[in-house]
Amino acid sequence: MGIEIERKFLLRADTWRAGVTRTLHLRQGYLIDAAALAAGLARASVRVRVQDATAWLNIKAARAGIVRDEYDYAIPPADAERMLQTLCNGLIEKRRHVVPVDDVHFEIDEFLGSNAGLVVAELELSAADAPFPRPLWLGREVSQHLRYFNVNLIAHPYAAWNARERAGDETC
Amino acid sequence: MGIEIERKFLLRADTWRAGVTRTLHLRQGYLIDAAALAAGLARASVRVRVQDATAWLNIKAARAGIVRDEYDYAIPPADAERMLQTLCNGLIEKRRHVVPVDDVHFEIDEFLGSNAGLVVAELELSAADAPFPRPLWLGREVSQHLRYFNVNLIAHPYAAWNARERAGDETC
Repeated sequence: MGIEIERKFLLRADTWRAGVTRTLHLRQGYLIDAAALAAGLARASVRVRVQDATAWLNIKAARAGIVRDEYDYAIPPADAERMLQTLCNGLIEKRRHVVPVDDVHFEIDEFLGSNAGLVVAELELSAADAPFPRPLWLGREVSQHLRYFNVNLIAHPYAAWNARERAGDETC
Repeated sequence: MGIEIERKFLLRADTWRAGVTRTLHLRQGYLIDAAALAAGLARASVRVRVQDATAWLNIKAARAGIVRDEYDYAIPPADAERMLQTLCNGLIEKRRHVVPVDDVHFEIDEFLGSNAGLVVAELELSAADAPFPRPLWLGREVSQHLRYFNVNLIAHPYAAWNARERAGDETC
């Protein structure tokens, strides 16, 4: 078990692309729909992810915020493919770009499919209040916004967001 | 991934106890409540099990019947304990007795806690119609009965069942 301490940001500019050192292709689905989490019928998201030639099962405590319990287990890719096809209700597909800045690795997720257009920078930290670099391309923080949870992007994809939602407005 | 081909029976008599070769102690919980499965908000049960000194994560397609996709992964027992405490809504506790009969291993689950009194024999087969021994203690088949799913025993434990339910009546 790990503690995930993650902060999530929108992007202000496209200039981060010059710093990409590695790009992964990710496809993922969830065994529990967002509606079950919203209704309190499950207390964790259960994610199946295929990441290039590897696959992972991830369990993450379902609450908004920066610090969350997280469990990650490698599983056979054939298992993951079958789960994605038979047990998940929709998929998220994205390219994950790794952008090192000073000692920190930003992971910049560029969504595809019905979430195309959405780009989010994530940052894993050792403490919720740990300092981190703020490159010029880093935009508004959305760590607390449930709509950016990938599980929620399946039921309410970026293609269906209004302008205020796209601007990272927390009140809508 | 495996295919689980399992048949489940009530017990007609207590005479199986003479044939027990091994007994395990199992504690398990679920990351998804039965209500979420019933509402179609998840398509698989996700079970966390601590079995003596080992622990397992199990994912099983959520539908009644004998043949179901099943995935089993060993996980660190400390992870499982923390998931049981923080991510599960109630626990099932039972003793599992192994009773070999001819070439077949019956697993007889004797439930504890709020399901005390419930005893169920399970049998894993290589095909849904594979022949198997029928010892005298084997009672009515309940493979198709959702109420015997362990995930359902958390929301509706045996202590709350009426006499017809306890008799394995499928219509109630």
